Amino acid sequence: MRKYGSTSREQLTDAVFTIAGTKGLDAASIREVAAAAEVSIGAVQHHFTSKDELYAFAFEQLTARVRARMGDIDPDAPLADRLTTALSQLLPLDAEREHEARVMVSFAARAATSDTLAEIQRRTLSGIRRELEEQLAAADLPNPSTRAALLLAAVDGLALDAVSAGIYSPDDLTAALSLQVRSLVTRN
Amino acid sequence: MRKYGSTSREQLTDAVFTIAGTKGLDAASIREVAAAAEVSIGAVQHHFTSKDELYAFAFEQLTARVRARMGDIDPDAPLADRLTTALSQLLPLDAEREHEARVMVSFAARAATSDTLAEIQRRTLSGIRRELEEQLAAADLPNPSTRAALLLAAVDGLALDAVSAGIYSPDDLTAALSLQVRSLVTRN
Repeated sequence: MRKYGSTSREQLTDAVFTIAGTKGLDAASIREVAAAAEVSIGAVQHHFTSKDELYAFAFEQLTARVRARMGDIDPDAPLADRLTTALSQLLPLDAEREHEARVMVSFAARAATSDTLAEIQRRTLSGIRRELEEQLAAADLPNPSTRAALLLAAVDGLALDAVSAGIYSPDDLTAALSLQVRSLVTRN
Repeated sequence: MRKYGSTSREQLTDAVFTIAGTKGLDAASIREVAAAAEVSIGAVQHHFTSKDELYAFAFEQLTARVRARMGDIDPDAPLADRLTTALSQLLPLDAEREHEARVMVSFAARAATSDTLAEIQRRTLSGIRRELEEQLAAADLPNPSTRAALLLAAVDGLALDAVSAGIYSPDDLTAALSLQVRSLVTRN
């Protein structure tokens, strides 16, 4: 017998992430999500009236999880350490975060052609960038807004290049983040 | 009557790019590509035995076009100018390159779950990175390989963030690229 009443929205988003990280987001149809979560199609439809609604909820969950990790930083650490610790949350440095990066990339790509997902992405990236900018401005660095955009872009690009081309080891990524932060907390 | 003999592979890849840039790569089925190119499904199948083969050919065409533009640089210009000119080819600075960036992102996301596309992506990114590294090494900069990875990641990440979240104007992107190059051609 299929589960129904016990199905939570979080169980279904976990199924979306599993499929998106292995086969890509386009493989995460209502039917496939139901199968992966071992529930009926009706149970999915009980929580989400459309695939777009399911994707939007899943993307919100994912970005909230990443931002919570990024915010959990010692405020008394030196600036470069704070930035490095926060930004390393976006890099595929272990198996779990590599899967997460694959899921992130598939949602970001879908956001390029979906207004709903683009709005979530806009809110997420603007929020991260603003937090980075505040820390850079507090250290009196020039052009804190451009520096913040570059810190964010570098980790987003490293993650994209790592999961799409497999050209970087965790050590490569750590060394790259360290040099990026060092370059941008310097006045130039 | 539908065209057949006159259909070229390039016509079909143009149709793939049009669909991928507006609706995403998953919308580029053989049926949709045939419709967009105004040819029969049989005409598409005459050139490509599968969707994977069509996507691989299209991705090769796209990366070859971008790399040709990146290679067309005055070798006597100063290092920072050469790097900026080459890397700006990867940024969505006008309507045409914004469309191209959307297509690139959708192929890169698909490469995260497709070995064939990942191999093309690996060859492309490794090639670009090696060329950047050679220029940085010729200028005696330390860690030229990490610097090259960061230059590439920054433009890939800026393009991803721009097309997925719409948070950057062409002026923002140009200012960011300029600061990234300036930061990384400095010894630090």
